Amino acid sequence: MNHGGNIYQFAQRLGCLPEQVLDFSANINPEQAVDLSCLQDVQLTPYADPDYGLLKQALNQRYSMPSGVDIEPFNGASAAIFALLRDLQPKDLVLYTPLYGEYAHIAGELGCTVHNIDRFNHLSADIPKHSTVIFVNPSTPDGQLYDLQELLATWQAAECTIIIDESFLDFCSSAWAQEVGAIPCGCPDRAGAERAGTRPAPTSVAEHIAHYDKLYVIKSLSKFYGCAGIRIGFILASTEAIKELRRFEPAWKLSSLDMVYMQQALANTAFIEQTRQQTVHLRELLHQALQASGLFDKIYPGQANFLLARLANGGDGYQLQERLEPSRILIRVCDNFEGLDKSHVRFAVKDERAIAQLASSLLNVGRLQLPMPSLDD
Amino acid sequence: MNHGGNIYQFAQRLGCLPEQVLDFSANINPEQAVDLSCLQDVQLTPYADPDYGLLKQALNQRYSMPSGVDIEPFNGASAAIFALLRDLQPKDLVLYTPLYGEYAHIAGELGCTVHNIDRFNHLSADIPKHSTVIFVNPSTPDGQLYDLQELLATWQAAECTIIIDESFLDFCSSAWAQEVGAIPCGCPDRAGAERAGTRPAPTSVAEHIAHYDKLYVIKSLSKFYGCAGIRIGFILASTEAIKELRRFEPAWKLSSLDMVYMQQALANTAFIEQTRQQTVHLRELLHQALQASGLFDKIYPGQANFLLARLANGGDGYQLQERLEPSRILIRVCDNFEGLDKSHVRFAVKDERAIAQLASSLLNVGRLQLPMPSLDD
Repeated sequence: MNHGGNIYQFAQRLGCLPEQVLDFSANINPEQAVDLSCLQDVQLTPYADPDYGLLKQALNQRYSMPSGVDIEPFNGASAAIFALLRDLQPKDLVLYTPLYGEYAHIAGELGCTVHNIDRFNHLSADIPKHSTVIFVNPSTPDGQLYDLQELLATWQAAECTIIIDESFLDFCSSAWAQEVGAIPCGCPDRAGAERAGTRPAPTSVAEHIAHYDKLYVIKSLSKFYGCAGIRIGFILASTEAIKELRRFEPAWKLSSLDMVYMQQALANTAFIEQTRQQTVHLRELLHQALQASGLFDKIYPGQANFLLARLANGGDGYQLQERLEPSRILIRVCDNFEGLDKSHVRFAVKDERAIAQLASSLLNVGRLQLPMPSLDD
Repeated sequence: MNHGGNIYQFAQRLGCLPEQVLDFSANINPEQAVDLSCLQDVQLTPYADPDYGLLKQALNQRYSMPSGVDIEPFNGASAAIFALLRDLQPKDLVLYTPLYGEYAHIAGELGCTVHNIDRFNHLSADIPKHSTVIFVNPSTPDGQLYDLQELLATWQAAECTIIIDESFLDFCSSAWAQEVGAIPCGCPDRAGAERAGTRPAPTSVAEHIAHYDKLYVIKSLSKFYGCAGIRIGFILASTEAIKELRRFEPAWKLSSLDMVYMQQALANTAFIEQTRQQTVHLRELLHQALQASGLFDKIYPGQANFLLARLANGGDGYQLQERLEPSRILIRVCDNFEGLDKSHVRFAVKDERAIAQLASSLLNVGRLQLPMPSLDD
């Protein structure tokens, strides 16, 4: 359940308000598509439409829904993950790591046999026949965007159930993808991508559902729309698969307030390109801030709204966190991601002011407190 | 999933707006404890406190939480029911009917062996040893309030897991309970209650959890606080049982907006007694309206915010619904409650204006369209 840091505990320890924390630990867009004034006419008394009609209409307009594909909304992507795995009850679960801990958590509770595949080192490992595979694209905590064509073919050949989490895909810019290229399978580094040349703009794998009915796409809306407090995520799958999934779903699982908010947010189409451009710009600033600090020997080439960096000389992320506390900066140490250790730290893309503060605080840490890193980064 | 009528489909058929429907089908308080202005300062960006600290504090202040008892909030009581039954996986499930259909629905999906006990006719039937029993108190659709002392002893003797749904208990007035008396076990009618004399004010069975750790109390907040659009309900159980239940719960299942709204609503303590007094008054008006129509041969002595009535001469509730459509009145025909047929119709307690409109429309139906009922009611 350790997602971002817990800003409430952090604020309490620091004796400040949660809103005074500079939270680089949670991958949430600092901008919103709409403000709370859009809620003023919501009717709270009645039960909401049990079919989520207006919400589904807004989702259909925002995301292309190929024919034969249906959608089921959930109160957040975490709830969607739990519901899907509980429904599928996979015997063998293949996790491409590093990976968001919620997957391993529920796999443990469900008693699945977990097969971890380190996507940094051997992406095309053998896949147990009929297993369920989970892949997050772009991945967290590194933000790497993969072209999944070859992997999809591999998984289909092994008759796998395929779950692709595309919660961060909306952040990926077409321009950026054309410039640097999505990382092709087997070349999981920036240099490899550049060698491979330009790639098509990133698109959802949802279009494959029509041809392979054991494919599920999970998506959070909180991240892109900057509202972790609004609990709406969804699953795309074949009409039959969604029908099966709905059997175990309670009625009225979504807040009417959340639905109205999200309908309005989804309708703000200008926000999409604005966010993508803004993310490219701010991620570059964040990259510069991390690099200038001299604290890190590797900054991963992330294409989402966060960057993963590795402290030089096996530095300790918790020590760094401690030294950033006076500036009320919260970061995400990634030692609970399978395959990573406490030298790996993730930073969300925040606004310019927050990044400037981070840059200055990191510089101070670099100058005053941590052992100097090697200079050959 | 047929809870109240679906006002959206109804409004569409009538060519009016959902808010123009006079919805007597859903048991929702027409009054709210707070309005939406309480949301103006909600921070949507960050993840909410994963421990629901402020919400639990507000719930603790509103409902007495005996020691050894813990609480788990859910995104609505339906979600709580699903989660609990999915977690318990009962082999034998005893349902005291008539009963809200969501219980039978999930029991069917989970493959439980269901034993229905008709609480109108033989409340103290034999209970299969180690079964899971579900009892709603006060019950729906009739609103009958039971004194559960004897039943609790019976269930405990059979080592049952006990689930008590107290979603409508808050509506029950101490004054009303003292005046008419909660219906004691085995005397499930008004006359029996009156013979039994006054009873103590209705209280939650949650206090028994400390002595019997297989007892769960489920509660919806939407009904009493007049906000079905806000999805918060909860389960009270032993600390150990709640810990077990949490294992399968996703992180951040509640909307931040819903939590802030409900915290404010729970803090409005004046609303509690206001609602109880108002409910007694309006239910009496509703009772008069039903009686004056001459359409019903039985009005059940409900003590919650709704009344169940039976159409005289085996009348057809759907026909009545059809005849109330020109007045945009939606009612709940109860033929999908086990043991009831389409002559049974439930009416929620609404405001005076709505009840006056219902009274007038029912009178018209009685005068003009339905065969006259027998006059010996």
